[in-house]
Amino acid sequence: MTRIVSVQVHDVRFPTAAAGDGSDAINRGDYSATYVRLRTDGPLVGTGFTFTNGRGNELTCAAVRALAQHVEGRTLDELIADPVGFSRSLSADVQLRWLGPEKGVIHMATGALVNAVWDLRARRAGKPLWRLLAELPTAELVECVDFRHISDALTPGDAAAILDKGLAGLDERLAGITRDGFPSYTTSVGWLGYPDDKVRSLARSAYRDGWRAMKMKVGGDIDDDVRRAGIIRAEIGPDALLMMDANQVWDVDEAIANMSRLAAARPYWIEEPTHPDDILGHARIQRAVAPILVATGEVAANRVIFKQLLQAEAIGVLQIDACRVGGVPEVLAELLLAAKFGVPVCPHAGGVGLCELVQHLAVFDYLRVGASLEGRMIEYVDHLHEHFTDPVRTRDGRYLVPQEPGYSSELRDESIAEFSFPDGPAWR
Amino acid sequence: MTRIVSVQVHDVRFPTAAAGDGSDAINRGDYSATYVRLRTDGPLVGTGFTFTNGRGNELTCAAVRALAQHVEGRTLDELIADPVGFSRSLSADVQLRWLGPEKGVIHMATGALVNAVWDLRARRAGKPLWRLLAELPTAELVECVDFRHISDALTPGDAAAILDKGLAGLDERLAGITRDGFPSYTTSVGWLGYPDDKVRSLARSAYRDGWRAMKMKVGGDIDDDVRRAGIIRAEIGPDALLMMDANQVWDVDEAIANMSRLAAARPYWIEEPTHPDDILGHARIQRAVAPILVATGEVAANRVIFKQLLQAEAIGVLQIDACRVGGVPEVLAELLLAAKFGVPVCPHAGGVGLCELVQHLAVFDYLRVGASLEGRMIEYVDHLHEHFTDPVRTRDGRYLVPQEPGYSSELRDESIAEFSFPDGPAWR
Repeated sequence: MTRIVSVQVHDVRFPTAAAGDGSDAINRGDYSATYVRLRTDGPLVGTGFTFTNGRGNELTCAAVRALAQHVEGRTLDELIADPVGFSRSLSADVQLRWLGPEKGVIHMATGALVNAVWDLRARRAGKPLWRLLAELPTAELVECVDFRHISDALTPGDAAAILDKGLAGLDERLAGITRDGFPSYTTSVGWLGYPDDKVRSLARSAYRDGWRAMKMKVGGDIDDDVRRAGIIRAEIGPDALLMMDANQVWDVDEAIANMSRLAAARPYWIEEPTHPDDILGHARIQRAVAPILVATGEVAANRVIFKQLLQAEAIGVLQIDACRVGGVPEVLAELLLAAKFGVPVCPHAGGVGLCELVQHLAVFDYLRVGASLEGRMIEYVDHLHEHFTDPVRTRDGRYLVPQEPGYSSELRDESIAEFSFPDGPAWR
Repeated sequence: MTRIVSVQVHDVRFPTAAAGDGSDAINRGDYSATYVRLRTDGPLVGTGFTFTNGRGNELTCAAVRALAQHVEGRTLDELIADPVGFSRSLSADVQLRWLGPEKGVIHMATGALVNAVWDLRARRAGKPLWRLLAELPTAELVECVDFRHISDALTPGDAAAILDKGLAGLDERLAGITRDGFPSYTTSVGWLGYPDDKVRSLARSAYRDGWRAMKMKVGGDIDDDVRRAGIIRAEIGPDALLMMDANQVWDVDEAIANMSRLAAARPYWIEEPTHPDDILGHARIQRAVAPILVATGEVAANRVIFKQLLQAEAIGVLQIDACRVGGVPEVLAELLLAAKFGVPVCPHAGGVGLCELVQHLAVFDYLRVGASLEGRMIEYVDHLHEHFTDPVRTRDGRYLVPQEPGYSSELRDESIAEFSFPDGPAWR
């Protein structure tokens, strides 16, 4: 028995906005974490977080407090025994649900709490999260998924078939990525805040460091975007992959028109070309820009949005986010939906600790769900890893498979103290 | 000049959950308002609110505080001169936008603030909001709408054509509803918390009081739903309209199956048959249940969701909500979209003060946008009106056109004091 006796939440903010890091067409953020610690009646502590962009982190912290009653006093075993019941106790609270439903502040806080429970579970099992998941029997994994509102696209039977199929060849796949690492791409080369010279030198050094896939931000002035795309393509040669990310600023017709110009730099995908809620818009854009792929997901509110993006054939790449949706079980639903529809998953990362989280999800996806590396890459941004006790490790542009128990979600105590808002030394 | 010098926010909660009022398949709420007062440098005060379901009202209050910086210190004239700029200062704040975008807690808080500005504007003009809007030149109304992310469905030219057309016959329409009132329906007859006898007697008295359209909640046990529908249909006779509201609990295929049974009671519409984000699911349900209409909107996050519901022919009735989206200008976009696609608007009301707000929107829609009463009704719930300084007035099941200046959004000072959470006498 492991009983969760209290939920602690910390408002942790890193002052990144001033440096222009993480600036794109719509965001200029102080990367922040709504950081949750589950204290137990034993030595184990579970940690989880959701990522925010600075101001407003107090809202997700307050939402964690509003939801904490559904976690405090429960035993880990109870929560494991009824995973859908636990998820719904948070996402379908009869009063708090109105604030979403299953979207925005309240759902992000749900994700932080649920992720902390999964971290706790993996720590108790002494396994990294990806291994805990990969070793679970199919029936137990299926029981984690809430099929409500997605059963028209994915049934428990579908899910079981995918997961059973994933058992074949699992050991070989694990040996391969343990040896070679997991493919990734870098987003550190072309933020909108960076001048041309910096973009050129960053693209050059990324290529030199082994990266053969990199992403630039677009969605500013289109002439600037075209020029910067040309600079990067010239640096990385004809074969490396160049992805573009518009961070939602375009209207549907504008996206189609702008991509016809940016096509000259031969992008592999265009990410977030328009409003993240616009399923039908993404579908129109995907039809118009093919063979360039449409990618989205980092701001997709929940599994119902992902379901529709797949049903409408609106995307060629599905970008899960580890902590915008309701935590590990909802991400599992999204991985299964992607597999059902044959769309590769390339997780969104960056921010604070998103690389740390999604590496577990990508490895699990490869081992049990998607079961292929074709078209799979984890985003990599080289920011803020030093604040984690089990930071990501990369080699030659690939993630090394994490080995420590848990979800790699633990912030260092010193970092929490230094960057707590508003009272930490960094903010005083 | 009217300068907004401070934003005050009050957490006001009415203890309705205990009585079973407002309980449905997913909610059991203490109806609450995140209530905003804009203090100015003169005697004028603007009021606005968003409605929540009890717990969590502190989150929308905190979100108003986070956004208040974009309102405090501004003059009303500045905000009027650049309505889209003002809306985007809230909805596209470079840090807070991540918490939505344009959905949930942060967008509901935006709605409360923007509505308060429009109340202030109408009060200064000495007109009820519907009249202020109806008398604005077409060009000014068009300038209020943010066409970003909806331009593929509605252009400024489309909007101007609709609004210009609405000028014809406006005086006759106004005379008609001033004399006869605006059609409405009642939702007070069949909450899930009520036993059969209470449902029967409420349906009977509603019919006796002149209501010829009424709505019941479904989404509990389907046999119970069918039985209660039969009771109400028997009481109200074959000609009165019976609407059903499932409050999102069904999966897509389940909705289709259940409606095939409930069809025996000849429902006029089925409201919220499934998850509010599921555009494609609503479209499938609408095709399957026709000629029963699918209605939704009270939890639709923003104009991008409404745009798609219309593009996908997923609904036969569009239910705007006055304060879940970003206030009057975003509702205006939704009214225009509905008119463009030929779908009637029947506003969502109930809760705290939603009847007070939406009557202005429905009257304006009739005068300048939809320009017809065919298929138009305002929801009516007989709760909590006594707390408003300018409460709705009805006669024979119709809303009387409001005449006081403003948006009818002002709570009585005594009610704020009594029901403030957690320190008001009602909660101590």
